[in-house]
Amino acid sequence: MFKDIVKELDPLFNPRSVAHIGATNNLNKWGNSTITSLVQSFKGDIYPVNPHEDMILGLKVYRKVTDIPGPVDLAVFTIPAERVAAAMEECVQKGVKSAVIISAGFAETGAEGKRLQDEVLAIARKGNIRFIGPNCMGYWSASSSLAAFMMPLLVKPGPLAFVSQGGNVGAAIVVAGFERGVGFHRYVSCGGAADIQIEDYIEYFGRDPEVKVIMTYIEGLNDGKRFTEVVERVTKDKPVIIIKPGKTEAAAKAIRSHSGAMAGTDEIYDAAFKKMGALRVETPEEMLDVAIGFLTQPLPKGKNVAIITPGGSYGVLCADACEQGGLNVVKLPEETIRELDKMFPPRWSRQNPVDPAGDRNLIAYLTAPISLLELPTVDSLIFMGFGGFTLFGSLIFQQQARTKMNEEQQEKNSAILKATVPILEGIKSTDPVVRAASVKQFVAGVGVTLGVQNGIEVDKMTDLVIAARESGKIGDKLIDDFINLATGKIDGSKSRMAVINDLLNGFMNAVVSQWIMRYGKPVITTTFTEQQGTLVDDHYDYASGNRAARVLLQLTKYYQYLSRESGSA
Amino acid sequence: MFKDIVKELDPLFNPRSVAHIGATNNLNKWGNSTITSLVQSFKGDIYPVNPHEDMILGLKVYRKVTDIPGPVDLAVFTIPAERVAAAMEECVQKGVKSAVIISAGFAETGAEGKRLQDEVLAIARKGNIRFIGPNCMGYWSASSSLAAFMMPLLVKPGPLAFVSQGGNVGAAIVVAGFERGVGFHRYVSCGGAADIQIEDYIEYFGRDPEVKVIMTYIEGLNDGKRFTEVVERVTKDKPVIIIKPGKTEAAAKAIRSHSGAMAGTDEIYDAAFKKMGALRVETPEEMLDVAIGFLTQPLPKGKNVAIITPGGSYGVLCADACEQGGLNVVKLPEETIRELDKMFPPRWSRQNPVDPAGDRNLIAYLTAPISLLELPTVDSLIFMGFGGFTLFGSLIFQQQARTKMNEEQQEKNSAILKATVPILEGIKSTDPVVRAASVKQFVAGVGVTLGVQNGIEVDKMTDLVIAARESGKIGDKLIDDFINLATGKIDGSKSRMAVINDLLNGFMNAVVSQWIMRYGKPVITTTFTEQQGTLVDDHYDYASGNRAARVLLQLTKYYQYLSRESGSA
Repeated sequence: MFKDIVKELDPLFNPRSVAHIGATNNLNKWGNSTITSLVQSFKGDIYPVNPHEDMILGLKVYRKVTDIPGPVDLAVFTIPAERVAAAMEECVQKGVKSAVIISAGFAETGAEGKRLQDEVLAIARKGNIRFIGPNCMGYWSASSSLAAFMMPLLVKPGPLAFVSQGGNVGAAIVVAGFERGVGFHRYVSCGGAADIQIEDYIEYFGRDPEVKVIMTYIEGLNDGKRFTEVVERVTKDKPVIIIKPGKTEAAAKAIRSHSGAMAGTDEIYDAAFKKMGALRVETPEEMLDVAIGFLTQPLPKGKNVAIITPGGSYGVLCADACEQGGLNVVKLPEETIRELDKMFPPRWSRQNPVDPAGDRNLIAYLTAPISLLELPTVDSLIFMGFGGFTLFGSLIFQQQARTKMNEEQQEKNSAILKATVPILEGIKSTDPVVRAASVKQFVAGVGVTLGVQNGIEVDKMTDLVIAARESGKIGDKLIDDFINLATGKIDGSKSRMAVINDLLNGFMNAVVSQWIMRYGKPVITTTFTEQQGTLVDDHYDYASGNRAARVLLQLTKYYQYLSRESGSA
Repeated sequence: MFKDIVKELDPLFNPRSVAHIGATNNLNKWGNSTITSLVQSFKGDIYPVNPHEDMILGLKVYRKVTDIPGPVDLAVFTIPAERVAAAMEECVQKGVKSAVIISAGFAETGAEGKRLQDEVLAIARKGNIRFIGPNCMGYWSASSSLAAFMMPLLVKPGPLAFVSQGGNVGAAIVVAGFERGVGFHRYVSCGGAADIQIEDYIEYFGRDPEVKVIMTYIEGLNDGKRFTEVVERVTKDKPVIIIKPGKTEAAAKAIRSHSGAMAGTDEIYDAAFKKMGALRVETPEEMLDVAIGFLTQPLPKGKNVAIITPGGSYGVLCADACEQGGLNVVKLPEETIRELDKMFPPRWSRQNPVDPAGDRNLIAYLTAPISLLELPTVDSLIFMGFGGFTLFGSLIFQQQARTKMNEEQQEKNSAILKATVPILEGIKSTDPVVRAASVKQFVAGVGVTLGVQNGIEVDKMTDLVIAARESGKIGDKLIDDFINLATGKIDGSKSRMAVINDLLNGFMNAVVSQWIMRYGKPVITTTFTEQQGTLVDDHYDYASGNRAARVLLQLTKYYQYLSRESGSA
């Protein structure tokens, strides 16, 4: 059966023409917001179907599906349940290939609804029409730029795939993903799953090379055994992240009313998910956090974590979160402590979490992680407040701009900036020797400004920046922006603040990518306040140490599962 | 001792002049970002003190504190630890009234640091100088608009007071509060607390009528007994919310290195907090959530919660979160179910959580809560997705604007809007009878547009809107904005979308405030996606049902504590 899943579902996810049965101009009907969603996203042919209207959103309306002149790959249903069977019959006559039934009022409402649903299913089977739903919020397919939703939703293409038994939990996750800058290749609100089952979508996503991470929200399963078999197969290739509510009786009752599913015993689900290598998370927020973790980080080879923090209290909270989750805040060897003694002032924490206790030496901050990542006993690093340095940088600049700065000081600052221009030009040179020498000169200059005494530190930093430049992560654009800033020629569309922010972000993210690449270990960063991060160039800052710890825990679990399965652990 | 706490600490929080010992033009020193923070916030006299500079940020610099001509109420220290004692001696000579020692390198570094700290303390005591710190990030006092921080932070005045033993956790919470729209009357990073203890600040905040909620982050206490006595007294008047990390050995070790405190046994702390009526939370995010809950909600008189949700799956997750936290998702009486049967389509959940299952009738959504809040068995309501209606409203408008809308339909919509203008003018009338009649006409009109058949529903809504208008929550400004929208005269500074958003928000928030006022029960609302809410006009939407449930749990705990204490439970 699974051999054909790709062939079976491909028409659904790659349609070239869509009929919308139930499109309407009535602003107070879902048929109106659904056609709006279609028109706004889909570039192929759209045929509204409605016996009582002539034009909808500038499109010609057809009385029946069989009146449509061209071929129809997909039918979208938003008409009342009682009329779906007859319309599905017409779809079979027309040779429609696939469908999504958004309409509610089927099995979830009782015996009569179940009868209607079975009738629709039988007709669709006869015509080889695979369908999503009923009683769902629709779906998204990036390959056809198709948003066949009950209402327009913010969604962007990307490497995630998601099937949700809850339409509004699903929609909220898709929109939250958009806001965080992460996209979906597929998203399906599966609703009553009369035809295509949750495990069918997971199997299909598993075979799609565009999909990197699979997510699912489940209230109950029609066939637990089949689900287990599929997921067990898929998790060997890709992570599968699951939300399964129903720990309490109140939730179990709500589930019976919502999806009609039997919630089952939570412990049984929990054990089953573990066995099949699926990763269970508690909230929509955590689901996206973990998915982004898989997109941006390598897997940690063990549970030993090192933490670096701009302040002691954040380190305390993060250490608590890590160890409560089962990670190990690893003890640092004496040698590493002596190494860090040379970089930080004597008041630094001298243990893990590494807290430089208010040291302002940015070079030390950005090279100390090397000493930690080099240790064979460290499997991963959490760098707290990393996404906040730019916040503070720009805050300070901003306030200084508002206050009357000593003129002499202003001239001095501007002279320092201008002196960097020939060095920056050197970094852009085609000659690798000139490039390397220029980076060295630049880093040394910054070191002098920061009062850095430690030559090893400067050498390490130079090395990092050269690698980041050679890898393309520090591109010409970034260097040109810096030159424009130094010479006072800022792009008119951007404020000085925005330029400084982007420069710092671009530079810092290039450094993180070097750490990750060199050591093959996760480096999870956080913002300073609770601000949600944005995924830019494979870099993402989490909103708290707590959330970073939970992500790391799931990456660790997945690695452990894979190791056990391959017998290498 | 506590009798004088107000007199003792008042000079610290209401200074008229500040000397900053360690101010500098050197951009790479905390003394520079500290003077920037002072200059940017404080309107009184600022005297930079530095033997080697003449002008800083346009201010004349003094060699020594004793050189300053006018009186000095507060001294801010950012000089190295070894030099603090001598400078403090000069402060005593000068008659300085209070101080904050940001400088690190005291007791937290060992025996020699402890000796320095004791010396400074003895000098300050001699001169009756009460001081914050050492080894802290500074403090904020709204009454003097004084931000004496190590660096400029975003902070606004408001009803919260906060003392934090972690400078960066504290700063992050203050800035996150600013971003959420909630402000602080006082914020203190207490650091090593050599002189003023955490419980002193709590006592002082407790006596300040401007302070509504007290927050504290604690790593360890110098005198647990005294702390317990104070907090027990304060919680009878105001909620005290506590973060106390250190559940794991890794965190306890980090605490010893950070603040030098002994973390103590977590269970002992937990039991002590419960006994003193303090509310323990786990994360900075939850601390702000709960604080905002106390600012915007009455206390629930029991643990029975009703949930209303725009979709089943969100209801399931919220019910799980409520019951896992110990709340009771209450069973609805048959009578209420029959009442809601009249409002919602037959597919609604017919139980708590109340899920109208995709019904688009906004009037039912906004009047159904009345049926729930009226029940004596319901102590509180969580309304999920409430802050998301405007999101979807504007999404749909936006997409329709982008697509070619049928001209006929466009004209019809615009005619409907224009017809509301005389009715809206009626709502602005000075005659209460005209006002009431106009509201009735307006609501009935909306009802017809939405296809509402139920007269009771329309009456309930009319009643709500009249009350909201009479209470001033629906002000003239809101009605004028609506008239401008209907007549196409939109304020040039705002987009049509922003106007619609603000209108919907203003209207919906007025309705929620009526529910809360009438029934004296908490109504906690959430956004649709994970977006952080903003506090506007005493209304706040939480980012998830999970977070709403945790807030409700803490409000319930506090009510239970107060009832037990007053012997009424």
